[in-house]
Amino acid sequence: MILDWKEVAKKIYEELKKDILKLEKKPKLWVILVWNNPSSIRYINQKQKYAKEVWIDFELFSFDENVLEKDLLEKINILNNDESISWYIVQLPLPRHIDEKTIINSISPKKDVDWFHTINQWKIVIWDESWLTPCTPSGILEIFKYYNIDLIWKNIVVVWRSNIVWKPIANMLINKQSTVTICNSKTKNIEFFTKNADIVILALWKPNFLTLDKIGDNTIVIDVGFTVIDWKIYWDACFWEILQNWNPITPVPWWVWVLTVAMLLKNTYKAFFYNSQIEI
Amino acid sequence: MILDWKEVAKKIYEELKKDILKLEKKPKLWVILVWNNPSSIRYINQKQKYAKEVWIDFELFSFDENVLEKDLLEKINILNNDESISWYIVQLPLPRHIDEKTIINSISPKKDVDWFHTINQWKIVIWDESWLTPCTPSGILEIFKYYNIDLIWKNIVVVWRSNIVWKPIANMLINKQSTVTICNSKTKNIEFFTKNADIVILALWKPNFLTLDKIGDNTIVIDVGFTVIDWKIYWDACFWEILQNWNPITPVPWWVWVLTVAMLLKNTYKAFFYNSQIEI
Repeated sequence: MILDWKEVAKKIYEELKKDILKLEKKPKLWVILVWNNPSSIRYINQKQKYAKEVWIDFELFSFDENVLEKDLLEKINILNNDESISWYIVQLPLPRHIDEKTIINSISPKKDVDWFHTINQWKIVIWDESWLTPCTPSGILEIFKYYNIDLIWKNIVVVWRSNIVWKPIANMLINKQSTVTICNSKTKNIEFFTKNADIVILALWKPNFLTLDKIGDNTIVIDVGFTVIDWKIYWDACFWEILQNWNPITPVPWWVWVLTVAMLLKNTYKAFFYNSQIEI
Repeated sequence: MILDWKEVAKKIYEELKKDILKLEKKPKLWVILVWNNPSSIRYINQKQKYAKEVWIDFELFSFDENVLEKDLLEKINILNNDESISWYIVQLPLPRHIDEKTIINSISPKKDVDWFHTINQWKIVIWDESWLTPCTPSGILEIFKYYNIDLIWKNIVVVWRSNIVWKPIANMLINKQSTVTICNSKTKNIEFFTKNADIVILALWKPNFLTLDKIGDNTIVIDVGFTVIDWKIYWDACFWEILQNWNPITPVPWWVWVLTVAMLLKNTYKAFFYNSQIEI
């Protein structure tokens, strides 16, 4: 059975349209883009396309790939202090000569709709999910909601490499009373955990890491990690053999993008809506 | 084999004495104590006794058990603004009519040597252990260090109820590349995890929860949780039957206090030392 990111995203967009129609003013998303990386640009095109679809205005600040870190920081400083700009994102990845963490943490936490800023990541960990939540992890939770997958008392295994995904998702799941095992690539006898898991979430970026023999017959597989080698995409999970065993699995991780974008636009709407209601 | 909190604490005190002897000025610990709870008072006596032993000055601000929350907050506000007071703790538990979270989070994070303030708890989660760390969790790490128990690639199970213990310890262990499973009292078939664990850390406060048949022959048991019923102490782990199977286990959790106190005094020294070096 396929857990289709696109189906879930479609539902989110439908709800978003309903909500945004009710607003007097259109929300807007501001984006800093460095033209260095094809995937950044592909990503931005997606964001712009779907923003338009749900009537969210979109403004791009472009920099060429030789931009200096100090120039980006200067622009961020301007946006942070510009009252007319409520929030914005910096599209990742950035060129190697720029430190992503420095850039992300120089964005004002109040204007960070990607919810990447360290301070915003902290909030999840102390169970404060009242405001915004990071896009990919909350997108994964939307899948469980959409397919009525109950999380309480479930055994969930998160195989991680990148902090930006595992930390929020693990903490959000624990907040839902799941039993969570956080594995890394060095975990000995990892099948022990994955075979017994109700749900395995992969964010390891290791081609074909999760073979069918490593999971139980009913294990649900959420695959976020993928690797591109010679223009061919490899996923953390062996998608086809797992699918043929009827395990519920998310399709090519390419599509995680679709859901991440949907959640970003939902964050943009939420930020806009809350801003108009309360003082943050 | 007994993992003796007291042995470890002894070593910490010896090191502390060496370090404090090198200082020109004696460090000092300020304490707010509400005289309501025998265990608070027992705890404070321990802290005062050991502080004296390592030449840390100790000043007590006492309140009777009918003290109002606003009076405590007022005192905290005074301490926060008093330059001559570098850090202090509020001894828990507090009387029922006072909200502990409100009190803890009103302490200036910079003066919070207990490292209980939400902001300080966050710091651990983002892997910033450069400054201070919370006393009980870092005390547990000291045990592993003292008995040369390597943590990397180990399977560690944390059975929790109180956030104040599990969140920091789980995150500190993940930072050390352990594979960590966070269970709660609702976890189905918990033996599955505990039997396979290299280390089980109990902070569940459920009498005799961990029986010998639930663990492996080499599983190390760290028992933080205990319950007092009719003046009798019950531990989360069945101490004697586990000890008789030669599993390494910590002795009566009563002694976790000894180590927590040692770590508090170590924090006090560290805060004093860093303060004299750097601007925080």
